Amino acid sequence: MPASRKIHVTGTRPDIRVAMREVTLSGGEPPIRLYDTSGPYTDPDAHTDIKMGLTPMRLPWILGRADVDELSGPSSLYRRDRESDPALGGVRFASVRRPLRAKTGRRVTQMHYARRGEVTPEMEFVALREGVAPERVRDEIARGRAILPANVNHPETEPMIIGRSFLVKINANIGNSAVASSIEEEVEKMTWATRWGADTVMDLSTGKNIHETREWILRNSPVPIGTVPIYQALEKVGGKAEDLTWELYRDTLIEQAEQGVDYFTIHAGVLLRYIPLTAKRVTGIVSRGGSIMAKWCLSHHTESFLYTHFREICEIMAEYDVAFSLGDGLRPGCQADANDEAQFAELDTLGELTRIAWEYDAQVMIEGPGHVPMHLIKENMDRQLAVCHEAPFYTLGPLTTDVAPGYDHITSAIGAAMIGWFGTAMLCYVTPKEHLGLPNRKDVKDGVIAYKIAAHAADLAKGHPRAREWDDALSKARFEFRWEDQFNLSMDPETAREFHDETLPAEGAKLAHFCSMCGPKFCSMKITQEVREYAARGLTEKAEEFKQSGSEIYRKV
Amino acid sequence: MPASRKIHVTGTRPDIRVAMREVTLSGGEPPIRLYDTSGPYTDPDAHTDIKMGLTPMRLPWILGRADVDELSGPSSLYRRDRESDPALGGVRFASVRRPLRAKTGRRVTQMHYARRGEVTPEMEFVALREGVAPERVRDEIARGRAILPANVNHPETEPMIIGRSFLVKINANIGNSAVASSIEEEVEKMTWATRWGADTVMDLSTGKNIHETREWILRNSPVPIGTVPIYQALEKVGGKAEDLTWELYRDTLIEQAEQGVDYFTIHAGVLLRYIPLTAKRVTGIVSRGGSIMAKWCLSHHTESFLYTHFREICEIMAEYDVAFSLGDGLRPGCQADANDEAQFAELDTLGELTRIAWEYDAQVMIEGPGHVPMHLIKENMDRQLAVCHEAPFYTLGPLTTDVAPGYDHITSAIGAAMIGWFGTAMLCYVTPKEHLGLPNRKDVKDGVIAYKIAAHAADLAKGHPRAREWDDALSKARFEFRWEDQFNLSMDPETAREFHDETLPAEGAKLAHFCSMCGPKFCSMKITQEVREYAARGLTEKAEEFKQSGSEIYRKV
Repeated sequence: MPASRKIHVTGTRPDIRVAMREVTLSGGEPPIRLYDTSGPYTDPDAHTDIKMGLTPMRLPWILGRADVDELSGPSSLYRRDRESDPALGGVRFASVRRPLRAKTGRRVTQMHYARRGEVTPEMEFVALREGVAPERVRDEIARGRAILPANVNHPETEPMIIGRSFLVKINANIGNSAVASSIEEEVEKMTWATRWGADTVMDLSTGKNIHETREWILRNSPVPIGTVPIYQALEKVGGKAEDLTWELYRDTLIEQAEQGVDYFTIHAGVLLRYIPLTAKRVTGIVSRGGSIMAKWCLSHHTESFLYTHFREICEIMAEYDVAFSLGDGLRPGCQADANDEAQFAELDTLGELTRIAWEYDAQVMIEGPGHVPMHLIKENMDRQLAVCHEAPFYTLGPLTTDVAPGYDHITSAIGAAMIGWFGTAMLCYVTPKEHLGLPNRKDVKDGVIAYKIAAHAADLAKGHPRAREWDDALSKARFEFRWEDQFNLSMDPETAREFHDETLPAEGAKLAHFCSMCGPKFCSMKITQEVREYAARGLTEKAEEFKQSGSEIYRKV
Repeated sequence: MPASRKIHVTGTRPDIRVAMREVTLSGGEPPIRLYDTSGPYTDPDAHTDIKMGLTPMRLPWILGRADVDELSGPSSLYRRDRESDPALGGVRFASVRRPLRAKTGRRVTQMHYARRGEVTPEMEFVALREGVAPERVRDEIARGRAILPANVNHPETEPMIIGRSFLVKINANIGNSAVASSIEEEVEKMTWATRWGADTVMDLSTGKNIHETREWILRNSPVPIGTVPIYQALEKVGGKAEDLTWELYRDTLIEQAEQGVDYFTIHAGVLLRYIPLTAKRVTGIVSRGGSIMAKWCLSHHTESFLYTHFREICEIMAEYDVAFSLGDGLRPGCQADANDEAQFAELDTLGELTRIAWEYDAQVMIEGPGHVPMHLIKENMDRQLAVCHEAPFYTLGPLTTDVAPGYDHITSAIGAAMIGWFGTAMLCYVTPKEHLGLPNRKDVKDGVIAYKIAAHAADLAKGHPRAREWDDALSKARFEFRWEDQFNLSMDPETAREFHDETLPAEGAKLAHFCSMCGPKFCSMKITQEVREYAARGLTEKAEEFKQSGSEIYRKV
């Protein structure tokens, strides 16, 4: 990023080094520090090589707690098969690290430490990153109001926090499907998404080589990675939902937990009795996971193994510190279906499951919709806080109208900004390709930027102390015609500069006290600068002087 | 637009023919009718020629009221000069129609008729267009809660209404500046903007040949045209704000009123005592008109001629039926300045001026911000309704953050959707080029679509009875994999189709029960269709049958 350098703020121990982006300004203005999700890729002092993966920064912290064992090999049968398959040599990441797992009887979640009163290095890192007291971070995690996704097998992450007392976060979904994209593309999409500000990335791959794709992403990701394990489980049974079993699903959870996935979407709230509630909907069940589980439940006429084995899942989550993202399998898929009985019935169940997960010190967030008209958005937030005991909310949009496919990053940024303001902790992005196809590089960027806008607008509305600083710095630069500063402070400096230069490409124009939008005579900013000091110095005596000094266009005030 | 045809709904007289776009659907679904701003350009039965202008549809209605005189020639001295300048032959529109003006002592505004209890053809047109009772339209106009911009010299317009009991409208700004664009480009931008849904267009030209550019736009515009007359007045005095005079401004108003401008932005609320209130702002005065008037006021140390001659302005407005758009010259230009004393002081004055304008039966709307963080948006609406006696509010955005130049169509669509829901009647679009340069064709489209989304989301949230119909039709098409219908019902059919075809270009894919986003096995819509009928028919007895019938992917449910 132009005029930016990577700086590090150091904590109480030298290996707590929080990266930030510092933007240098002109005109005697102090530099401004921005939250930075891009990882070592934007650090000229760091050497990165995607074949090697990132440095496992958190490893000393994890091992230092002396509560994990290094396993002799992967526990997952599936993974063992994959690793012994010579045909996969070409796509396999050359990983050598052995999986870590909690020692018998131990829990290794950040919630567990927080409840014991411990401020971990991860919590301190987050506190520095957010500009709040470490104790605040610990307390929010202990109370379940925030999560710090940090699988012991993903030591490459730079710790971040998801909770409504902190900056609103955004997630970018990537992942290949059966019909498009490759491993390289997915890794590239991950680094690309984090470059523009994705706080977490979900790998929703459903195509070939899901296991190997995920390994590449994890080893190279500076942000937490989420998945929906049922997708891979379904691949393993050839796409036949009714053939899914608890054993196979359990092996998948362990497979992914030992790779380092930081949070799992688990649709354990899709109960048999809720399924008929979706029958009269305009768009039925639109969550992929939700529809898979509904199909399973109906085939077997019994509650899903996600629900019946929920406590066993909690034990696994606590052994690796994988956070729950309790999936909203019955979320509405259109305006007509918003806030209906099916949706809220499931939400109640997610609240009950939250309590159970907390018994195991497992971290929990709750997924939310979806498609909701503006006037029904707040009810989603209020109910979620009430029935899910203030566990962080993580919503997909919501889209505030259904009529603009191709522009759903905008239809949903509206809803996302609002629900973020109301208290949602993380916003799952929607790209312009939503409902139409798999996002490409441009779509990922467009989606991330629309969601950074929504999240930042929410931070402003919530009154986050650091949020306004950025807007004020940019506005001041705008008013003072520091064009370079204005570009450099933009969420997307390249685009801002490009748009300006389209009509005024000359370098001199970047010193001009106007732009092509209004031209020199009509620039309100310019006129105001002239007006302003006179107004400030008192009116009567200055009227004549003002008339004299006239309309010098380039006069520096 | 694909699968669309122009239809006309006829009123109580045969020349009241309201154009609508009817989209044909497949699968036995009834066609759906959409509000259509695009004018005769999208009517294959209409012959259009921009050199001739559009048919003056309203002329018989205007003349039928027998309250206007046809003048022997233009009243404006400036216009007479322009018309006798041989050098301008090349840019001049070959207009022959003489200006109309109210007979002495008459008022020809829609508010005047409405207050007398008359439902004009314009009002009936609007009622058919909005799907409401004509008496409702009349009543809202009579009470000042809505305006129907309809200059007697712009008979080419298809009547539309701006008021919070009706569909939320959007305005697109066009206009050349001293540094860019031509007449042809501006006319083209106007037809382009209305094609995508602009309900009104403001011509904000500040460059060369403002008068002639405007004539071309007016004669070819099926939507009301607004201007900010002070821009042209300033051009006339070579850009020196302090040289502006009432006489020159008055001549400009009459010049434009006789051309047919339907509403004027007039910054009459910028009072001398308010100017110092902006001195401590981060971005001072950001309205061009506001800064011009502030400069004038300070130079002359007296209240502006817009304020001191306000009653004379009202008389002019009533003679041609030009609506006031009372400008917010002191609107905030950044988050830091939102809802401050300067802004609300001016709003109070706009409320006083509204009462005065209504004494003359002049139609009034009130302009609003600007840049406002989400939590401060509602106060803008509530105050405006209270102090401006429910006159329609017309806001620019507001932008909900300042940090994303290049994406301000998104930062502001968030604020626009919200304030539209709260009651704003018309939203002035913001393009991606805002703050950076003059919008091109792509920017105009992007701005219009972002604002159609905001306006439609607001209509949904307000519960407009016709709004949901559109969303439901599209969602149903989506659920039933009627891809062609889904594209055709989109706000931008071309883009939706293009995005889909990027990964699945084969025609067969448009019959497929999935898209490239999830692929066939993971399509929740597909699985749900399978699930759904079983659920509806009862669970237990169907579980076995379901298992038998299996996973046939293309099975039609």
